Amino acid sequence: MANAHPLKVKLQIFCGNEIAMGPGKADLLDAIEAAGSISAAARNMGMSYRRAWMLVDTLNRCWAEPVVETVAGGSHEKGARVSEFGKRLLGSYRALHDTIDASASIGFESELAIHLREIPRPSHHKPA
Amino acid sequence: MANAHPLKVKLQIFCGNEIAMGPGKADLLDAIEAAGSISAAARNMGMSYRRAWMLVDTLNRCWAEPVVETVAGGSHEKGARVSEFGKRLLGSYRALHDTIDASASIGFESELAIHLREIPRPSHHKPA
Repeated sequence: MANAHPLKVKLQIFCGNEIAMGPGKADLLDAIEAAGSISAAARNMGMSYRRAWMLVDTLNRCWAEPVVETVAGGSHEKGARVSEFGKRLLGSYRALHDTIDASASIGFESELAIHLREIPRPSHHKPA
Repeated sequence: MANAHPLKVKLQIFCGNEIAMGPGKADLLDAIEAAGSISAAARNMGMSYRRAWMLVDTLNRCWAEPVVETVAGGSHEKGARVSEFGKRLLGSYRALHDTIDASASIGFESELAIHLREIPRPSHHKPA
């Protein structure tokens, strides 16, 4: 029998040379929606604020509508939320990923799984 | 109109915690088949011999049959070739990738392409 989840499918959408959507940005959007700000989302993901801000900036520059909106507030740390457009975008991206992931699993099971070991054999040699 | 190739699909097959097949290993197998040795393939790919050897070792430990076979020879630098099993494996992997890539493109065009910009808008701000 093969491993439980031997397949990993990664889906990236490019806008020019920039990644308009991918696994990292999708996870960041979830974190922003849960935390209510870019800085809190970054902390929760163990990511610098600058990096999170850059990812959000790329998202907002690559799509026709804003994906993340900042929420006006009196404090130094403004809030942020995923826009309605952003939520639909995230849903479509995740649905597309799940569809091809399921399709890949079917092909893998029928063609490749039978030849895959449960765990790798140990390595005995070193390169010369 | 969206970009010509805005989608990138990456397919990895895991054996335990090791990558049994992925884009890098598939390209290395092509290079070994073309060059006739691991060292020449590594040079052609701009990769160290040690790294290429490790990838081949992982391939050979993760699948039921050897993927790359060394070819006996008198010289210091032995030749290597992709086994018949390896060729079938590579063909199945590439076919699976192409199938899900085509499936992803259809979903992308119908759901997401309309919202994607041709190129990103310029970035005007810097993070606070």
